[in-house]
Amino acid sequence: MDERLKQQMDFILEVDKVKNIMRQTYLADGKRKENDAEHSWHLALMAVLLKEYANEEVDLAKVIPMVLVHDLVEIDAGDTYAYDEAGAATKEEREKKAADRIYGILPKDQGKWLYGLWQEFEAYETPEAKFAHVLDNSQPLFLNDASDGISWTEHGVKKSQIYKRNRRTGEGSEKIWEYMQELIEKHIRLGHVIDDMKEEQE
Amino acid sequence: MDERLKQQMDFILEVDKVKNIMRQTYLADGKRKENDAEHSWHLALMAVLLKEYANEEVDLAKVIPMVLVHDLVEIDAGDTYAYDEAGAATKEEREKKAADRIYGILPKDQGKWLYGLWQEFEAYETPEAKFAHVLDNSQPLFLNDASDGISWTEHGVKKSQIYKRNRRTGEGSEKIWEYMQELIEKHIRLGHVIDDMKEEQE
Repeated sequence: MDERLKQQMDFILEVDKVKNIMRQTYLADGKRKENDAEHSWHLALMAVLLKEYANEEVDLAKVIPMVLVHDLVEIDAGDTYAYDEAGAATKEEREKKAADRIYGILPKDQGKWLYGLWQEFEAYETPEAKFAHVLDNSQPLFLNDASDGISWTEHGVKKSQIYKRNRRTGEGSEKIWEYMQELIEKHIRLGHVIDDMKEEQE
Repeated sequence: MDERLKQQMDFILEVDKVKNIMRQTYLADGKRKENDAEHSWHLALMAVLLKEYANEEVDLAKVIPMVLVHDLVEIDAGDTYAYDEAGAATKEEREKKAADRIYGILPKDQGKWLYGLWQEFEAYETPEAKFAHVLDNSQPLFLNDASDGISWTEHGVKKSQIYKRNRRTGEGSEKIWEYMQELIEKHIRLGHVIDDMKEEQE
């Protein structure tokens, strides 16, 4: 077995671990939380189906690998819940170290390329990165909607937190961000999301 | 909300169900079996990494959506274990009916396109379909290897069954099929796969 294939196989087996990294979002049926592999599969499929709503033309040959690997760093760094502010403070450093190790398993050309796509995702500048963030931010919202907002209720999530996290979502897709806002309003009415933004405006 | 986006959202939530369709393969750590969404995520990432080993040039813009959706029919038809011969007899009919319903949820253009990719996968003729089958057949083998062949041992799997299932794998990638054969021989030596092919040759 040659060295290149061995490195690829080592990586393929190493990343199997994301199947055990649990997120805070419940499946649509509300019965259990989902893991990073399931989430990433969902994003890749959504990329294919929702591409037409990206504000700018996006290249799926970049978006798809980007979403497939965007959470691999959590193998070492763990999942930082969207609304965990303490975790957010150390997230960048933990994830950088993880990326060095994990992408370092691959043959240099492939490791460099995927590491670059992950950095591009994090940098949030290109049309592809912006669209990947639309997917990454909307998918849990869609699952929350389908599962009667259990995850929001569990964590006492406030409208301002969702808006803070999604402050740039509209840059990737106005259309999807509009739809997300409709869903947020619906779940405020249902009492699943706390409306703390009226007061702020006063 | 317009009709097109509604259809896409209905589909995106419908396919969430594959996260609950369990396969017979264990994760690399051997602790639990994997589901269709995890499996499909793994195949998509492998498509990106192992493309260079396809016998013929393949278009990832087809291979990736193909592997992302190839198991969706199991939402209605269930997972037919690779070595379940009774199940295999009715598989085609059950899966055709499932495909009609599931892809029918999407806007017509997208439903037709993905249905077509699934049919192309099943027809096993194009370079993309052949390569997708390499991924679909090798991934469980790689996980079986990593998890000490638990799934093979559990089912008393014979070498002839693996070879029958993989009789065309070499058409998609000689290189990966060669490596798979090395792994099969290794697990025959370890007693995880029953060698029933020596006798056949006598």
